Amino acid sequence: MELFGTAGIRGRVEERVTPELALAVGRAVAAEIRETHGRDGESVGSDLTPEVVLARDGRVTGPAIAAAMESGLASGGVSVLRAGQLPTPGLAYASQGRYGVMLTASHNPPGDNGIKLFRDGVEFDRELERAIERRVGDDEPAAEWDAWTTTERGDTLESYLGAVVTYAREFGEIDGRNDHEALDGLRIVVDCGNGMAGPATPAVLRELGATVVTLNGNVDGHFPGRGSKPTPESLRDLRAFVADANEGVADPGRPGTDGDAEGFAFGIGHDGDADRLVLVDAAGNVVHEDTVLAILAERYARRSKADDPVIVTTPNASGRIDERVRAAGGRVERVRLGALHEGIASVEAAGDTVAFAAEPWKHVHVPFGGWIDGVCSAAVLARLVAADGLDALREPITERPYRKVSVDCPDDRKAAVMADLIERLPETFSDATVDTDHGVRLEFADASWTLVRPSGTEPYIRVYAESDDVDELVEQVEAVVTAAVDAAD
Amino acid sequence: MELFGTAGIRGRVEERVTPELALAVGRAVAAEIRETHGRDGESVGSDLTPEVVLARDGRVTGPAIAAAMESGLASGGVSVLRAGQLPTPGLAYASQGRYGVMLTASHNPPGDNGIKLFRDGVEFDRELERAIERRVGDDEPAAEWDAWTTTERGDTLESYLGAVVTYAREFGEIDGRNDHEALDGLRIVVDCGNGMAGPATPAVLRELGATVVTLNGNVDGHFPGRGSKPTPESLRDLRAFVADANEGVADPGRPGTDGDAEGFAFGIGHDGDADRLVLVDAAGNVVHEDTVLAILAERYARRSKADDPVIVTTPNASGRIDERVRAAGGRVERVRLGALHEGIASVEAAGDTVAFAAEPWKHVHVPFGGWIDGVCSAAVLARLVAADGLDALREPITERPYRKVSVDCPDDRKAAVMADLIERLPETFSDATVDTDHGVRLEFADASWTLVRPSGTEPYIRVYAESDDVDELVEQVEAVVTAAVDAAD
Amino acid sequence: MELFGTAGIRGRVEERVTPELALAVGRAVAAEIRETHGRDGESVGSDLTPEVVLARDGRVTGPAIAAAMESGLASGGVSVLRAGQLPTPGLAYASQGRYGVMLTASHNPPGDNGIKLFRDGVEFDRELERAIERRVGDDEPAAEWDAWTTTERGDTLESYLGAVVTYAREFGEIDGRNDHEALDGLRIVVDCGNGMAGPATPAVLRELGATVVTLNGNVDGHFPGRGSKPTPESLRDLRAFVADANEGVADPGRPGTDGDAEGFAFGIGHDGDADRLVLVDAAGNVVHEDTVLAILAERYARRSKADDPVIVTTPNASGRIDERVRAAGGRVERVRLGALHEGIASVEAAGDTVAFAAEPWKHVHVPFGGWIDGVCSAAVLARLVAADGLDALREPITERPYRKVSVDCPDDRKAAVMADLIERLPETFSDATVDTDHGVRLEFADASWTLVRPSGTEPYIRVYAESDDVDELVEQVEAVVTAAVDAAD
Amino acid sequence: MELFGTAGIRGRVEERVTPELALAVGRAVAAEIRETHGRDGESVGSDLTPEVVLARDGRVTGPAIAAAMESGLASGGVSVLRAGQLPTPGLAYASQGRYGVMLTASHNPPGDNGIKLFRDGVEFDRELERAIERRVGDDEPAAEWDAWTTTERGDTLESYLGAVVTYAREFGEIDGRNDHEALDGLRIVVDCGNGMAGPATPAVLRELGATVVTLNGNVDGHFPGRGSKPTPESLRDLRAFVADANEGVADPGRPGTDGDAEGFAFGIGHDGDADRLVLVDAAGNVVHEDTVLAILAERYARRSKADDPVIVTTPNASGRIDERVRAAGGRVERVRLGALHEGIASVEAAGDTVAFAAEPWKHVHVPFGGWIDGVCSAAVLARLVAADGLDALREPITERPYRKVSVDCPDDRKAAVMADLIERLPETFSDATVDTDHGVRLEFADASWTLVRPSGTEPYIRVYAESDDVDELVEQVEAVVTAAVDAAD
Repeated sequence: MELFGTAGIRGRVEERVTPELALAVGRAVAAEIRETHGRDGESVGSDLTPEVVLARDGRVTGPAIAAAMESGLASGGVSVLRAGQLPTPGLAYASQGRYGVMLTASHNPPGDNGIKLFRDGVEFDRELERAIERRVGDDEPAAEWDAWTTTERGDTLESYLGAVVTYAREFGEIDGRNDHEALDGLRIVVDCGNGMAGPATPAVLRELGATVVTLNGNVDGHFPGRGSKPTPESLRDLRAFVADANEGVADPGRPGTDGDAEGFAFGIGHDGDADRLVLVDAAGNVVHEDTVLAILAERYARRSKADDPVIVTTPNASGRIDERVRAAGGRVERVRLGALHEGIASVEAAGDTVAFAAEPWKHVHVPFGGWIDGVCSAAVLARLVAADGLDALREPITERPYRKVSVDCPDDRKAAVMADLIERLPETFSDATVDTDHGVRLEFADASWTLVRPSGTEPYIRVYAESDDVDELVEQVEAVVTAAVDAAD
Repeated sequence: MELFGTAGIRGRVEERVTPELALAVGRAVAAEIRETHGRDGESVGSDLTPEVVLARDGRVTGPAIAAAMESGLASGGVSVLRAGQLPTPGLAYASQGRYGVMLTASHNPPGDNGIKLFRDGVEFDRELERAIERRVGDDEPAAEWDAWTTTERGDTLESYLGAVVTYAREFGEIDGRNDHEALDGLRIVVDCGNGMAGPATPAVLRELGATVVTLNGNVDGHFPGRGSKPTPESLRDLRAFVADANEGVADPGRPGTDGDAEGFAFGIGHDGDADRLVLVDAAGNVVHEDTVLAILAERYARRSKADDPVIVTTPNASGRIDERVRAAGGRVERVRLGALHEGIASVEAAGDTVAFAAEPWKHVHVPFGGWIDGVCSAAVLARLVAADGLDALREPITERPYRKVSVDCPDDRKAAVMADLIERLPETFSDATVDTDHGVRLEFADASWTLVRPSGTEPYIRVYAESDDVDELVEQVEAVVTAAVDAAD
Repeated sequence: MELFGTAGIRGRVEERVTPELALAVGRAVAAEIRETHGRDGESVGSDLTPEVVLARDGRVTGPAIAAAMESGLASGGVSVLRAGQLPTPGLAYASQGRYGVMLTASHNPPGDNGIKLFRDGVEFDRELERAIERRVGDDEPAAEWDAWTTTERGDTLESYLGAVVTYAREFGEIDGRNDHEALDGLRIVVDCGNGMAGPATPAVLRELGATVVTLNGNVDGHFPGRGSKPTPESLRDLRAFVADANEGVADPGRPGTDGDAEGFAFGIGHDGDADRLVLVDAAGNVVHEDTVLAILAERYARRSKADDPVIVTTPNASGRIDERVRAAGGRVERVRLGALHEGIASVEAAGDTVAFAAEPWKHVHVPFGGWIDGVCSAAVLARLVAADGLDALREPITERPYRKVSVDCPDDRKAAVMADLIERLPETFSDATVDTDHGVRLEFADASWTLVRPSGTEPYIRVYAESDDVDELVEQVEAVVTAAVDAAD
Repeated sequence: MELFGTAGIRGRVEERVTPELALAVGRAVAAEIRETHGRDGESVGSDLTPEVVLARDGRVTGPAIAAAMESGLASGGVSVLRAGQLPTPGLAYASQGRYGVMLTASHNPPGDNGIKLFRDGVEFDRELERAIERRVGDDEPAAEWDAWTTTERGDTLESYLGAVVTYAREFGEIDGRNDHEALDGLRIVVDCGNGMAGPATPAVLRELGATVVTLNGNVDGHFPGRGSKPTPESLRDLRAFVADANEGVADPGRPGTDGDAEGFAFGIGHDGDADRLVLVDAAGNVVHEDTVLAILAERYARRSKADDPVIVTTPNASGRIDERVRAAGGRVERVRLGALHEGIASVEAAGDTVAFAAEPWKHVHVPFGGWIDGVCSAAVLARLVAADGLDALREPITERPYRKVSVDCPDDRKAAVMADLIERLPETFSDATVDTDHGVRLEFADASWTLVRPSGTEPYIRVYAESDDVDELVEQVEAVVTAAVDAAD
């Protein structure tokens, strides 16, 4: 039974992510945990507590799904801590030293819900997901009655927020700046999108000294204020608000000599469960996700005490990251999309140090914890902007034009085509560095790059490219791909 | 799909009353309620709130079953109040003006659980039970996502206990006795059997002025102290405790001139969910359940302001009840076993007043509410004993010998046999009054009686009889029944 | 001991509204309730439950103050329901049929807190306030130990929000408009000011069909987003947001043929506890508080089924209200500032019907309940705007220029001066209608008016005036007042 | 301001331990903690969390006192975890790694309450108590408003019970016995006295395999079942219950070959907060508190891996303890009454190992934790009885006659008298070993002993003695004391 996609289990609550499914998954997770820890709750293969912390985002259907999940876990014989509403990174934080279940469909429409599973702060890997799927398929039965548990309730949000604040303060200190003055008075606007950022990011930034105005800061599972996915379109109100407020303001969002600030230094938009973030500059424009990633990657590489700090990212991430990481004395490793935590594990298994890991929009602040954390990103970015200004942070980063096209290719021909392209592309672009770990990625001396990979869900070969002359590069690559598809006919 | 037996839904939690079943029943109940009240929550056919109060007894499996039930109700679109642990009569009380779900297997073993459904203080009737069964069989789907509800939590126990105390005080006042002195200092021992009587009956009796000692007053779903069903056997400790304490005591449990009491006036034993009660006298003997019933029935008939107050009971209840009710100016109506509330409804529909309704061990204090209530029975009986003494209450009641035998009869012959007996028995016992509403019940001038009815579950015709010479009566009736069975061959 | 000002008890938490004071006030309230209801909790002079529902706004100091208040009430012998965070009108709603304590300092700075007391939905009157003050001054002791109570917790917000939604729907229906279409798609922005409007107004408007964007919708007791008091200054962000979004939009906030709306129909700003509201029009301007009051008063007068519906207001409220109420066939009664509920009671005692009562910014929706309710105002105003448009609602209202001046007058001369002015002013303005109930109020044929009253707290006589030529009117009145002050020397 | 007696703060709730006092003590504790940890919550002098876990026993006045304490702590700037109802040892357990406040008056009458303060599992020492008294006397003010905290609620009982079960299992294992069989089927009766033992000891013993019947197992702050202090008198019901049930039973409470047990192996009586325990043997007699202490002390000395394990006890404890400890290769150290934890600290500071510490009725199971723990005692004693039988445990212990007399002595002469007796007593009893650390204690070769010490609260010199000929010994000692008192005149 296949349950997990790249975003965990996700779908409509009436058909797919029903209470019935949640009950079954809870039962399966419990059985898996009990097998790991021994049926009598004494650890046989792990230092973790055989306990699960369970939280949900602000969706209307969260309480009913959570009750079913609780029932599955409790009748499966593991104890449950119901932590109420949390941002996904808040649940990940709370799952350290035990297990965690997060009920969220992130930025999906309000009629959807989903399930994310954590073990000691990190999402389940493929192997654990497969084990859960098998058990759900086998209708894992309830435990013996006297192993059933009673659920406790507790609030873990405050300790998470406190940890982010402490981390961001220390982050500033390492940079040699006074932690209490850094954000003092900086004016920031956060569009929480009626999601779980509402009780999190504004409080963190305020505690760090910022003056925070919020848009859609009330949690509402109908997502009335805007679409839950933060895009330039859905962030229209935020962008206009920032741009209009800053019109004619000399140094927006930064306190003048009188201590008061006018306008906003920048804006932040979160998705429904606050694991990702979008940055809006003082002119109201969305900062490119790869640029945000490059800013953070460079800083983390520079701060790292390791000899050869590694930044883990994905093949679709821009070469500008590599440029900045190299400038900071670090090294970039790429792993397949959706597998940052596996990438981190593999680098660390090899004895190297991961300083930071990220896909576009999704940042794992490794020294803080092994999960994607948009609240922590907001705090760290605010510290950096407060210290240096956003313009200065962007200045060294080259933003080349970017394009993405899709070439028709029947599913049954994809394997042959990719095998062919592994030969053809390096031949055609003989001056490029080639990486074939996840599709075919070519990188050129001027940091231009292209990535060719089969779509996982549709009958296409995808071509991504970034270059000063991106149209020409795409045209050349597309030609090679089309030829390969034709040849495979 | 047949779910409901005479005791509601009940069985092992791993196989029958699973979280999966609870979820399905919750969904079905929600759908039924929403149909009654209109899909938008506005009442179309009822004055009730489309809301469900949900409680459980102290069983180990209660929390997980309750979470599943909550999920079914909430995803079915009705709002839920989680009331925690309650005695069954406490949930019935709280269900007034709305709906109620009680999770209990009463006196069953600890590995069982069960579901009882209430509507405005009264258990679902057959028609509603059938509707639920149909919906469970049809896999009632979840409501549209935006109709799902958020559960609230609240504690309703205190208001129930307060209501019982007030009722018992007024009960005493109507009898013309001062309410605050009545129980003052009376020493009573209550064996709560580790069930839900623990937080209920002792507090009620203490509030009414009694000095209460408890056995197994701590709630423990393993029922460590004794079997959950109160029988002479399982109440061994209670009976010995009372008998030994009273040895050589002149007026046990009643305060002397110094204000202190020695020994115990009586003992009470409850089942797991406190809907039923067993009375133990000062000698440590169980008072016959029909005698308890007769005491209460007589009092209620006497107190009633109606011209012709009706006591509703079942065919297996003794003629001694009829004797005492008649002496008090009332009338007895019998209904089939397990259908007291339907009997009450039918008597009231006919314009008559029901003063009290009861099966052996199960008492519906109609002026208090339409549910079986062992906590209220404890309070009312204590008031009566405090006023008159248990001996005086029993004195007018004739306890005749009682027997019950089973005559073999294949299931497919039962209908013919009973049709035959409706003729034969009145012929044989021409001096008896005959009632053929629920089997054939014969009543004689000296209050002897016999009841002949087919077993609902086994291949027998059952014969019940109570008479000063019960053996002879049984022999005669058995002969008629055997003849009828043979004739139907 | 004087505790209550015009805004209840309010002040700094370290010095004035300390936990110690809250404990003492709780004890006093409990004693007062117990005296009213008889020491044993049975009602002797009231139909109310001797129970108190206790809530707080989102202030940082709320939990500690609430715990002390709970302790005072519980050790005073009344039972307490802790309802968590609520808007003040939500607590007032929940206090119906019992008593209520609201911990809020409304729009005061974050280091303040305060106490408001309710009885059956209405604030304590002066007499009850004096009784509490006396008891606090006398160090009301704790009740006997066995009368102390155990607190329950419950959430009453949902039922309040549901009641507002239902009221607003019916309000629309009475106007003969379909309730479900009325707000459909209307775009509104609500600036909750990080106060208790956050979990209330946006959800109500969304449920009524509006598309709601919020500013500062996250509850934060530091009030980081803006000053808690809604003024044109503190609502700067809201006003700019609305004005900029509507630039060049034809029919702002109203869905076009494609179903999508651009811009915002209007904006709402609330204070910290959501009992008051400020309306911002599509151009980003604050609508005058008297105009909002006139719109509501006219509607309520028109809807009323009474022959001679009364609108209760205060002397400082504009004559434009009288104009509109008269046009709607109603009558205006004025009562002293801060005494709307006493005014309602007095009109109703005289056998008349109050259709609506309000001071500027504070609206009592009498058919809904006897408290000031900014959430209900938001819902009702949205219904009116959706139906008719804000411009059409304002059109019949004449907004004349308004001024307020203060004339020096020592406290000890105030009485004499006012006695003198009661003569002088009618003499000088012989064409005016005179009302001397609360100061001296003169009303002219063209609806111009002036009010002269002594300040309650400062050494001034206040002059309010509204007139097409307000400067001239003020000059004339000021001259008379100055003459009276001089004469009293 | 003197608040703390030998039993912490304790007294009537209307006069002494009022909510007002609780608020003041909470404030003082918070200020003390904040000073220790630095005003910004960062530890400067301690590894503990600046957090307080707050619990109460089952008294009627507990909720109101707890709310006041919570308010004092929260407005003092430390965060609070409200843990609901707990046995005192359960709160001590939960206070490990932080601070703890227990609201209990132990075995005092129901109209009393009290406050016990813990730091990392151990009661506050005199120095800390003095600091709190000073701050209460100085009316410690509230912290700045933005340091006030929000309280969380959590349930810590389950983890405490689990820890006791695990400890008792391991205790058995160290003795080389199978942990799961040890208690299997042993029948024990526990009289919880309506106190906090109800939800604790029976569940622990049941989990360890015993069959547990309870008396007064329901928590009720009125203590209806018996006096809260467990004495031979107040345990009359328990003793009769055990004695009567065991009449004629061969091996009471121990399962026979059919697996069922008759009667009870022993009985346990707890005080109101379950920090102390009384053991009742199979004949219904209270086992002498010094004998219980000797049984435990011997076992702990024997189990210890230290070379020279120390048992800490008080001067009033019997010489039979010394006998058994010596036999087990250990050593006894005596400290003043009420100062076991200071005694433990001082022995450990000297580099020695404390294996166990106890006063009569109060046992500190040092390997488990540094607090007095009656629940743990019940579990450990049950393990020992299950393994060896109570008779065998008592057999090696010599129970000599014991007496206690008081000799009149004005307070102002006490110092001189004691100084004199330090000379006189050794002279008179030249064959005794002398210890003058806490009064004058003489120990004789046959393990007889006497202790002479001034009363702390009354005008007496107390003489304790235990000897085969206790009357003669007391007579001799009394004569010496009287002579010294006369001499000091």
